[in-house]
Amino acid sequence: MANWKNLDTYAAYKELQGTKGTVKIAEAMAGEAGAARVQKYSAKMAADMAFNYGAKEVDDAILASMQKLADEAGLTEKFEELYNGAVINSGEKRLVLHQLTRGQLGKDVVADGINKREFYVNQQDRIADFAKRVHAGEIANGKGEKFTTVVQIGIGGSDLGPRAMYLALENWAKKNGAFKMEAKFISNVDPDDAAAVLASIDVAHSLFILVSKSGTTLETLTNESFVKDALKKAGLDASKHMIAVTSETSPLAKSSDYLAAFFMDDYIGGRFSSTSAVGGAVLSLAFGPDVFARFLAGAAEEDKLSKNTSIFENPAMLDALIGVYERNVLGYTATAVLPYSQALSRFPAHLQQADMESNGKSVNRFGEPVSYVTGPLIFGEPGTNGQHSFYQLLHQGTDIVPIQFIGFKESQCGVDVDIQGSTSQQKLCANVAAQIVAFACGKKDENANKNFAGGRPSSIIIGKQLTPEALGALLSHFENKIMFQGFLWNVNSFDQEGVQLGKVLAKKVLAHETDGALRCYSDLLNI
Amino acid sequence: MANWKNLDTYAAYKELQGTKGTVKIAEAMAGEAGAARVQKYSAKMAADMAFNYGAKEVDDAILASMQKLADEAGLTEKFEELYNGAVINSGEKRLVLHQLTRGQLGKDVVADGINKREFYVNQQDRIADFAKRVHAGEIANGKGEKFTTVVQIGIGGSDLGPRAMYLALENWAKKNGAFKMEAKFISNVDPDDAAAVLASIDVAHSLFILVSKSGTTLETLTNESFVKDALKKAGLDASKHMIAVTSETSPLAKSSDYLAAFFMDDYIGGRFSSTSAVGGAVLSLAFGPDVFARFLAGAAEEDKLSKNTSIFENPAMLDALIGVYERNVLGYTATAVLPYSQALSRFPAHLQQADMESNGKSVNRFGEPVSYVTGPLIFGEPGTNGQHSFYQLLHQGTDIVPIQFIGFKESQCGVDVDIQGSTSQQKLCANVAAQIVAFACGKKDENANKNFAGGRPSSIIIGKQLTPEALGALLSHFENKIMFQGFLWNVNSFDQEGVQLGKVLAKKVLAHETDGALRCYSDLLNI
Repeated sequence: MANWKNLDTYAAYKELQGTKGTVKIAEAMAGEAGAARVQKYSAKMAADMAFNYGAKEVDDAILASMQKLADEAGLTEKFEELYNGAVINSGEKRLVLHQLTRGQLGKDVVADGINKREFYVNQQDRIADFAKRVHAGEIANGKGEKFTTVVQIGIGGSDLGPRAMYLALENWAKKNGAFKMEAKFISNVDPDDAAAVLASIDVAHSLFILVSKSGTTLETLTNESFVKDALKKAGLDASKHMIAVTSETSPLAKSSDYLAAFFMDDYIGGRFSSTSAVGGAVLSLAFGPDVFARFLAGAAEEDKLSKNTSIFENPAMLDALIGVYERNVLGYTATAVLPYSQALSRFPAHLQQADMESNGKSVNRFGEPVSYVTGPLIFGEPGTNGQHSFYQLLHQGTDIVPIQFIGFKESQCGVDVDIQGSTSQQKLCANVAAQIVAFACGKKDENANKNFAGGRPSSIIIGKQLTPEALGALLSHFENKIMFQGFLWNVNSFDQEGVQLGKVLAKKVLAHETDGALRCYSDLLNI
Repeated sequence: MANWKNLDTYAAYKELQGTKGTVKIAEAMAGEAGAARVQKYSAKMAADMAFNYGAKEVDDAILASMQKLADEAGLTEKFEELYNGAVINSGEKRLVLHQLTRGQLGKDVVADGINKREFYVNQQDRIADFAKRVHAGEIANGKGEKFTTVVQIGIGGSDLGPRAMYLALENWAKKNGAFKMEAKFISNVDPDDAAAVLASIDVAHSLFILVSKSGTTLETLTNESFVKDALKKAGLDASKHMIAVTSETSPLAKSSDYLAAFFMDDYIGGRFSSTSAVGGAVLSLAFGPDVFARFLAGAAEEDKLSKNTSIFENPAMLDALIGVYERNVLGYTATAVLPYSQALSRFPAHLQQADMESNGKSVNRFGEPVSYVTGPLIFGEPGTNGQHSFYQLLHQGTDIVPIQFIGFKESQCGVDVDIQGSTSQQKLCANVAAQIVAFACGKKDENANKNFAGGRPSSIIIGKQLTPEALGALLSHFENKIMFQGFLWNVNSFDQEGVQLGKVLAKKVLAHETDGALRCYSDLLNI
């Protein structure tokens, strides 16, 4: 059994605290010594990618202490328990099985009397079959016409991950003949969200996916009614236009309101559900099941690396350790995720949920308050756009914000122009290379307003092209990074009790059972 | 002349430092005393809106000290100098005149021999005339057919603000018969951005707006070539499909490559340019010049409030003071902007630039390093989506993140459904009301994992509906808040020297003039 302990009880953590400030990145990254760091500090990832941490505030001694911490905290042992089916989600007394949707890392996991890997694969097969029949026109609308659009109705993990993945592969699929149907997403309870999406599509040729594990998510059920209303007004039979992704025990599971229902379960948290039926249905319909399978294969290959005990062969674990070092030793409060890829425009928003909802906790897995900071604030926008926006603060602001860059050698569309001797893709790559060095090394200037202190750490994940496999590997990397950080902070990364109070109070407002300040705000908002 | 001094030299600032921790929000907001705070702590804004700060960590004593600080720092005096045409952008030796695009707050401002208000109004009139002729089909494509789509090519301030404003009013315009043309935006140098936008439109009926003040922005010129290539391949004459928004001295100003050119100048920073021709061209084409005029009117009305010396009648100044108090006295590092309005989905991204690029500085306006923290990290997503994402950390994380909520009583589209006894709009409003109180008051629970400590401050701007006037007022509020904060921190909020180094290094990479770490990263990215 792994030994679940608080971060500040580990000897290696105390060792790391003693290294604060020993690596001056501006100096370390200068000259040929800097070049040597870039060449040396790189960890192989799946799908021909690499995690380069040359510009992070580490050196061989710090990395050795990080390895000690990884060993002392039993990170691989804890991961092993997780993928072998232990009750890692301690608060909700649940297994944590999202890795099982894309591979089998350990022993067979049997829960509720069934083999869970077989269960997830079975759902994938059912979805693949369904998607193929939709694409072939065998499953069609009331008039026998093909569906051309798929609309996901879901919020949080049922929205952010699948939406980010869809946007990441939309242009790749178009370029590679894999684009089957356009996907749209309705998430917000704001009625203007559903109204706008419905106004932008041809409802008669649209297939809607209702995604709610419990079948009780208020926003999602409300938006379902919104959509059903619209279908009814268009003279259409809603039950011929809707499928459900839910748990087998939910009220949606066997309802005749849906053409079909595909299942996930309580062992897959919403924010980790992109590789389950939650992402599987919409992505298989949009791009075909083969593309979804390639996405899963990339994630599975990357997952395997997370079993390695050497931090140098386990990029997710190493990234996690660096992040904890930045947060708890160096005292940085946020992390910027900056993909130099327009296709990853919503990937930071997905990571924002995945990370902040998992590790934004103040108590450990035993319900005891911790005396150190946990999950950082995560934000980001694609480069080069961000350069013309918030990078000013990152370069010259009073706080240091560590950065996680992502870049690809090749574009997805392959359409480009040569201006001033270089292509757009070369300009894009040149900018991310330049930014890493600008942040790390800075540049002295006698005019303090034009002075760059440097010393701002970053890492970069470099890939050949954003393919389905690369996207799967990226997703796995960050999911596993978050998991390892949760292990280090000794928090339960798989519940989200912090979202409950707002729900309870919102119900009181709607029932007009309020007093004090809440009554006043309700009045001001005319509820 | 105003007295430009560092924040830590003001007596009132020292007074404020002594108040740290004197207001316990969880207690202050409880019961009828909390209700009294919500009723009392509200400042009127333009367009029937109000800034409510009941749930901020202030009380009468702290507010009195804030008033002293505002007076001591001469905030209204400094604003007066700004709108009367002083060289407030000290680094670049420029006036700061974006307020003049929407009204005349003080004396005539004459620069470069011309009355600047007349100049901006003249550009608005030229744009209005041009837009009307496009809408009437008098200005049409080569075949004499109407343009149906307008595409803005720009980055940073030429993209984020106009895009956020377009999205904010798109559904309102559709509902109110003001929707003239769909707008799209190309910003990133990533070739997949332009390729995807071009693939999604009918280029033969598209009008492109090239936006670059200097006429030399690399991303924008590259994307212009990208678009010209596409037009050429479609057998179209690019000069019949393009207009420019630029400065009169730029190479684009009198080029025959464009159907027309509309002007801004060096006195309007990119991030403050939504009310200039930069926002004016695309918004007037999309929604008609009357809607753009209403947007300007809302901003002008709100600007007038920023002249008031009483902080209780100057919501932007009060918001600025509260933000500085949270940053420098209470020690919070970030601010979340959370609009309960899907239409404001990109408003936080715009504010992220406007705020972080303006006040993410480490030196004061005299080029001397400051010894206090300046601009915070700004991020946000619309509610209720955020509730199902990063709110976990905001409620139960180890850091406190102050929040800026925005909410409206009515939706824009007016389409709604009644589920479980309430409409979607009521649910949306109930949620924001509930969140304010949940963050402020928390809720004790014996299970520490379900315990909410509360004490997390927020403000809310409440409006009737997100109309053009309301949007203008919102924009003005935040622009002026940022300006007042810059005055308090004594930084120049109107330059952005921090973006230069990356540009210089990117050019070196493209010219293959690199060594050390930069050469290695260039190699890894195959440049």
